[in-house]
Amino acid sequence: MRLTQSTNGSVPKGPLGVLIVGMGAVSTSFIAGVHAVRKGLGKPFGSLTQMGRLPYGEANGTVPFGDLVPLAGLDDLVFGGWDLYPDDAYASARNARVLDRDLLEELRPELEAIQPWKGLYDPRFVRRLEATHCLPAGSHAASVERVERDIVRFRKTTGAERMVLLFTASTEAHAEMGALHEDPAAFEKALRQDDPRISPGMLYAYAALRQGIPIINCTPSRVADFPAFEEIGASHGIPIAGRDLKTGQTLMKTILAPGFKMRALGVAGWYSTNILGNRDGEVLDDPDCFKTKQESKLSVLRSILDPEQYPDMYGDLAHNVRIDYYKPRGDNKEAWDNIDVFGWLGYPMQIKINFLCRDSILAAPLVLDLALLADLAQRAGEAGFVEWMSLFFKSPTVHEEPAVHDLYRQYAMLETAMQDIAARLADEHLEPKRSVI
Amino acid sequence: MRLTQSTNGSVPKGPLGVLIVGMGAVSTSFIAGVHAVRKGLGKPFGSLTQMGRLPYGEANGTVPFGDLVPLAGLDDLVFGGWDLYPDDAYASARNARVLDRDLLEELRPELEAIQPWKGLYDPRFVRRLEATHCLPAGSHAASVERVERDIVRFRKTTGAERMVLLFTASTEAHAEMGALHEDPAAFEKALRQDDPRISPGMLYAYAALRQGIPIINCTPSRVADFPAFEEIGASHGIPIAGRDLKTGQTLMKTILAPGFKMRALGVAGWYSTNILGNRDGEVLDDPDCFKTKQESKLSVLRSILDPEQYPDMYGDLAHNVRIDYYKPRGDNKEAWDNIDVFGWLGYPMQIKINFLCRDSILAAPLVLDLALLADLAQRAGEAGFVEWMSLFFKSPTVHEEPAVHDLYRQYAMLETAMQDIAARLADEHLEPKRSVI
Amino acid sequence: MRLTQSTNGSVPKGPLGVLIVGMGAVSTSFIAGVHAVRKGLGKPFGSLTQMGRLPYGEANGTVPFGDLVPLAGLDDLVFGGWDLYPDDAYASARNARVLDRDLLEELRPELEAIQPWKGLYDPRFVRRLEATHCLPAGSHAASVERVERDIVRFRKTTGAERMVLLFTASTEAHAEMGALHEDPAAFEKALRQDDPRISPGMLYAYAALRQGIPIINCTPSRVADFPAFEEIGASHGIPIAGRDLKTGQTLMKTILAPGFKMRALGVAGWYSTNILGNRDGEVLDDPDCFKTKQESKLSVLRSILDPEQYPDMYGDLAHNVRIDYYKPRGDNKEAWDNIDVFGWLGYPMQIKINFLCRDSILAAPLVLDLALLADLAQRAGEAGFVEWMSLFFKSPTVHEEPAVHDLYRQYAMLETAMQDIAARLADEHLEPKRSVI
Amino acid sequence: MRLTQSTNGSVPKGPLGVLIVGMGAVSTSFIAGVHAVRKGLGKPFGSLTQMGRLPYGEANGTVPFGDLVPLAGLDDLVFGGWDLYPDDAYASARNARVLDRDLLEELRPELEAIQPWKGLYDPRFVRRLEATHCLPAGSHAASVERVERDIVRFRKTTGAERMVLLFTASTEAHAEMGALHEDPAAFEKALRQDDPRISPGMLYAYAALRQGIPIINCTPSRVADFPAFEEIGASHGIPIAGRDLKTGQTLMKTILAPGFKMRALGVAGWYSTNILGNRDGEVLDDPDCFKTKQESKLSVLRSILDPEQYPDMYGDLAHNVRIDYYKPRGDNKEAWDNIDVFGWLGYPMQIKINFLCRDSILAAPLVLDLALLADLAQRAGEAGFVEWMSLFFKSPTVHEEPAVHDLYRQYAMLETAMQDIAARLADEHLEPKRSVI
Repeated sequence: MRLTQSTNGSVPKGPLGVLIVGMGAVSTSFIAGVHAVRKGLGKPFGSLTQMGRLPYGEANGTVPFGDLVPLAGLDDLVFGGWDLYPDDAYASARNARVLDRDLLEELRPELEAIQPWKGLYDPRFVRRLEATHCLPAGSHAASVERVERDIVRFRKTTGAERMVLLFTASTEAHAEMGALHEDPAAFEKALRQDDPRISPGMLYAYAALRQGIPIINCTPSRVADFPAFEEIGASHGIPIAGRDLKTGQTLMKTILAPGFKMRALGVAGWYSTNILGNRDGEVLDDPDCFKTKQESKLSVLRSILDPEQYPDMYGDLAHNVRIDYYKPRGDNKEAWDNIDVFGWLGYPMQIKINFLCRDSILAAPLVLDLALLADLAQRAGEAGFVEWMSLFFKSPTVHEEPAVHDLYRQYAMLETAMQDIAARLADEHLEPKRSVI
Repeated sequence: MRLTQSTNGSVPKGPLGVLIVGMGAVSTSFIAGVHAVRKGLGKPFGSLTQMGRLPYGEANGTVPFGDLVPLAGLDDLVFGGWDLYPDDAYASARNARVLDRDLLEELRPELEAIQPWKGLYDPRFVRRLEATHCLPAGSHAASVERVERDIVRFRKTTGAERMVLLFTASTEAHAEMGALHEDPAAFEKALRQDDPRISPGMLYAYAALRQGIPIINCTPSRVADFPAFEEIGASHGIPIAGRDLKTGQTLMKTILAPGFKMRALGVAGWYSTNILGNRDGEVLDDPDCFKTKQESKLSVLRSILDPEQYPDMYGDLAHNVRIDYYKPRGDNKEAWDNIDVFGWLGYPMQIKINFLCRDSILAAPLVLDLALLADLAQRAGEAGFVEWMSLFFKSPTVHEEPAVHDLYRQYAMLETAMQDIAARLADEHLEPKRSVI
Repeated sequence: MRLTQSTNGSVPKGPLGVLIVGMGAVSTSFIAGVHAVRKGLGKPFGSLTQMGRLPYGEANGTVPFGDLVPLAGLDDLVFGGWDLYPDDAYASARNARVLDRDLLEELRPELEAIQPWKGLYDPRFVRRLEATHCLPAGSHAASVERVERDIVRFRKTTGAERMVLLFTASTEAHAEMGALHEDPAAFEKALRQDDPRISPGMLYAYAALRQGIPIINCTPSRVADFPAFEEIGASHGIPIAGRDLKTGQTLMKTILAPGFKMRALGVAGWYSTNILGNRDGEVLDDPDCFKTKQESKLSVLRSILDPEQYPDMYGDLAHNVRIDYYKPRGDNKEAWDNIDVFGWLGYPMQIKINFLCRDSILAAPLVLDLALLADLAQRAGEAGFVEWMSLFFKSPTVHEEPAVHDLYRQYAMLETAMQDIAARLADEHLEPKRSVI
Repeated sequence: MRLTQSTNGSVPKGPLGVLIVGMGAVSTSFIAGVHAVRKGLGKPFGSLTQMGRLPYGEANGTVPFGDLVPLAGLDDLVFGGWDLYPDDAYASARNARVLDRDLLEELRPELEAIQPWKGLYDPRFVRRLEATHCLPAGSHAASVERVERDIVRFRKTTGAERMVLLFTASTEAHAEMGALHEDPAAFEKALRQDDPRISPGMLYAYAALRQGIPIINCTPSRVADFPAFEEIGASHGIPIAGRDLKTGQTLMKTILAPGFKMRALGVAGWYSTNILGNRDGEVLDDPDCFKTKQESKLSVLRSILDPEQYPDMYGDLAHNVRIDYYKPRGDNKEAWDNIDVFGWLGYPMQIKINFLCRDSILAAPLVLDLALLADLAQRAGEAGFVEWMSLFFKSPTVHEEPAVHDLYRQYAMLETAMQDIAARLADEHLEPKRSVI
């Protein structure tokens, strides 16, 4: 099945520039994977835009995402980015030990070609890291300017008219939201005054906004999910989405909890423990970081189960979340959950789940989807916080709380958005995409 | 919040007669539970009609099921039924050892009052069981007549104008579907000829149809899910739904599998083992019975994951299902599942699930929901196979295959049906039900 | 098989007084269980002295413990003790919710007869507890005197010439060992000076020593395992044993770890998490208490695997132990362990263990064994720390570190001790006990 | 620490020839591993003779096995063998996918040098296998002669005066033991008559016996564990040991079960399921093969727990063992065990164990130990069935049933044997081996 190519402006042409803040395990797995798929060395499992299908035509008919909405192709992606270490993408991917060595050797030239630019470094926000590859300290304004300069240079050398910015750097220290985050003017004033509450992540995001580039925040850090930036995005046609990619245990929770609720089963407790042996794990051994992560994880169940509406079933739920550094697990991750449910007359039952998962293997395809969908969203006229991307995040950034966490409602939102965009672009005289199954 | 009571005919009045074929662990847990709830000794967790809520009014508003659609109340239920043993509901519940002894003592008078009528017994269909309380052997026609006589008597003594028939008897031997199941005339002819392919379950169901009573088949046996009976049901305003209540492991499968698919994760294999120590387990040690059960369990994944549309992700899925009799588990049930999933570039991950569950505790609330919803469906004019009850069954009975197995799509079907029925009944000049949250 | 009863003095005669400090879940399960066994309502599983067997006679012959060594019988036990709450043993057992209500009703008279005496209370050592049944505050010397008075009175009313003291009270705050614990004179001086480092547990133990009564410390508190008391015990013929009954997870560790070592399998990591929902769990939420408990749990693996002798196999073992309060678990306890082992050329394998256990059900039979064995030891002339009781403890009290933790070596020590005692008592003209199988 | 080298004859000199029947996953992992260790590319974890230690000298002193008893060194081993496929050891190891490709490349020359000789093929005993590299069909006597010719040639080309034969071929169909297995004369007569009950495995073993070579049977097949061969071995100074290497689940059982017994915990049931995805798994899908395997696995628990002596604790144990072929598991193996134990008064508890193991990684070091120990045993004068090798086998071959299965008793037997052999060889004027720690 092939679709007639349209000449309409809403169909993407030319390269899509993918700007990456932080070249670690997730982002190099993403880049390497895209190259592997291009070379026919693997398939992009875990990516909805590549492997999923959307309803189309008569009953039960479906088409790939790309046949319904005009997504950029994998061949169109060009990569650039910043890091606090000078390793190229090959060295960084080797170091991350996510992908097999054999595969990385086959991709070596493509990966070695990606050399990170010097990153913004602020020890107030990034501890436990000895940056060796950073821009000279300077005013906030100077930092933004340098980042913009990198972007402009990248646009020229690659010819990428369209871009997206992916934030995949190490989690920043907790940033309290304040008045400076409330509106654009306040933020800009604080920026000029070198306000210490502005983190490197916010500076990257601000530079992207100034360049009209959509922002995808894959981490728990708060780099763009506040009113000041939403207002800039909304008024300038720039989509923004985040926070914290929804991978292992939380993904399972948002699959299971709606299921329990749809059968009116009560939940007395949910005990979750995670063991992981990479840098993430070490960082989370820091109680402050852990607290933030835990709070984000806890809210998911509350949101789905809605104890206020269902006090008998979920009002007394004991929810523990543990994250422990455990060296032997290495770059993998493991979760053990115990769930105490109850049925008829309150009789108890137990469910234990042991998930042996791999963070980057689950995250990389989400990064790909988000890059392509952010670009699509911008072309389709979306601006500000994009709520239909909630499916991909632990703490979806929304205009108004509460966010939707239930995976199935999130998926329905995404599907509806795709249909809407398809219809909207069709109205703009796009040749309707047709499938010939 | 209380709704104005309407005087419209669509609002149920008077008792609802619940006719039960087979007074075992599930049905006595159901009956005892209803009495316990009436007496304030417990809550009907696991029952959507009692504990769930439906959207109503403005954004995020919800109301209990009973406020949107006119369900019979728990106080309206009256119970009667057949069994091949003479034990009353108290003795049978004690014997099943599902509910605590203390609770059963408090319900003893109500339960002792329920004495089963003699059941239909045909050794060709029910092996491993020494029936001591059965109707004299006779022609099929005579059997149907006797069952009808029991029903008529029950209607008189209880004053129940409305009834539902719940089939919860031991699984019958596999019945091959043939020409006699194709249309009403063929079935009736076969009945007159005492065709040995007609099982006791079909005779009960036929008697119910003749009395205009909805049929709910909680077991894997094929007692009503064939064209001959659907035609009778459809032309006489009698709802029919089945087969095999969806409880433990299969419930989990229909929760998890759609989640994997919504994230484009591949599944290489799913190994399921079940251990159970009650009569069910012993029966399933019989390879024939097991084969049937296994086939039903296997089809669920195929239906949800749709390997034909997604050959790369699900085309090569290895699916094993084991059921083993293991005495120490007693009346409980335990499942262990290993799921091999894969993400980005095909890298593998594993999920292990250990479910310590209790069959009757999961099944009893479904029985309650089905009884109330079947009655509602009949009053709302539904007839023949009721597909929106799929949520409750392992092998939903549908007009045309494939059935929907995905729990979330099943739930959406139910929710839509409730809205439709509410609207339809409102059109019939039912006072709109209003919620004052 | 019955043995000829001997008239020798080493055979126990008359009641054995069991003095208990702390009438909680473990001790009431122990007392109730002894009464249940006497009445034929249950069997003392988990108790080696009652259910185990020892080699005797020709190849593979065995006899019950009691046929080889002269143990007190269950009928000989009489119970008394102290608690900071006035509940009798029936009320306390009901409150603990370990044993079934039905069983407790049958033992009600025996249990209600056991009314605790007022306990010693010192808020410096026992936090989070509002004692309502305690002796008036006074000098250490006065406290010891009161405890002795209780003992003397108990001896008189019961006629128990022989006694043992079981310490099963709530864990005391960590007591640093100091000069006062080094020798009897130093301790006695500190006692006269009301040294605040002397805990209630030490006062009970000192009173027992003064009365010549063996001491069994079932808790992690340090009440008797120091040189001053060992010296008193050793010079006065008083056996002392402790600390911390070896029940769930640690028991499993001391079973598994020797097995890995006997097959030269390496261990890269052992991650252990525990969830429990009773008062113990709450107490351990206190980081200080947890630290102590954790340290004790960690040392077990080090001791068995001996990383100094086996640096390649165990030198780099990552060992985490978590204990979390999780309300839904109630009085039960659950452990999840992940063990990373490695074999040929270092290739990794994983073992996951989920133990759904019940603390008091595992602990009560150990208490019984220890009471009987302490009495036996005293009659057989043992004095001071009894190392062959190591089998029963997480942190065995020994003359000289390291203690043996390997369950199999511990069992061998016990078996050897039984043979030694049998031989010793036989030399004292005890008629040899003979089995007629 | 180095020991003085002795010149005594009991110290091994020259190469040790290792003859292997069946060059599959286990044997090539063993060979490759030995070469890897020689080259310093890995350590022989899992091998007691290489990584374990034995008591020596004063309290708690230990020495490596090789310092107490004169074992052949890894450098002395030379390999040869038969297979029904022509693949050399490199190709076969690659195919087995147990060891990393990188490692195998480094060992390629050594492994490619090992080309199997044509094997004995008898379709009555080896089904589901299309042999492409077999000796011409002929009389039993001719087959034995050909095997002996291979051995003699190997001895000449390698100069190996000492040899061991390892049987690691695919499991043969069940061979009923009969009169021909009772004594040497009967066997030899049957051999001359080409009795169809004589399997290829027996012919290899007989050839080895004729050449005076010790036999180690690593498989469940019955190739040497019968009286006829024991008599030959015993009278000619040839050690024989087997059957079925004790690796994953059974190893765990023989570790855990003695532990339960040492604490007098009852066991109500033990449910074991295994999933494996290699040829072994496929073979075991054949119900006959499975039956044999299951029976062998079942007897282990009976032997350890001894229900006749402990009827209350183990008399009613339900023991299920499942083995299922599950393709996604590939060359790995996974076991899930549920154990129902009970303690004080019979209160139940549950233990679940999930073992993600790798058969060849567990088996290869046992093969190494057995080869070295069999050679040692022969030099030390052992002959016939060697019971102190029980530690390594699921069904230890013993003179008189019952065999010991308890891992700890097995280990003690091995340790004692090592001490005995050390003493015996010392008496023969061997310089005592001394350790200078």
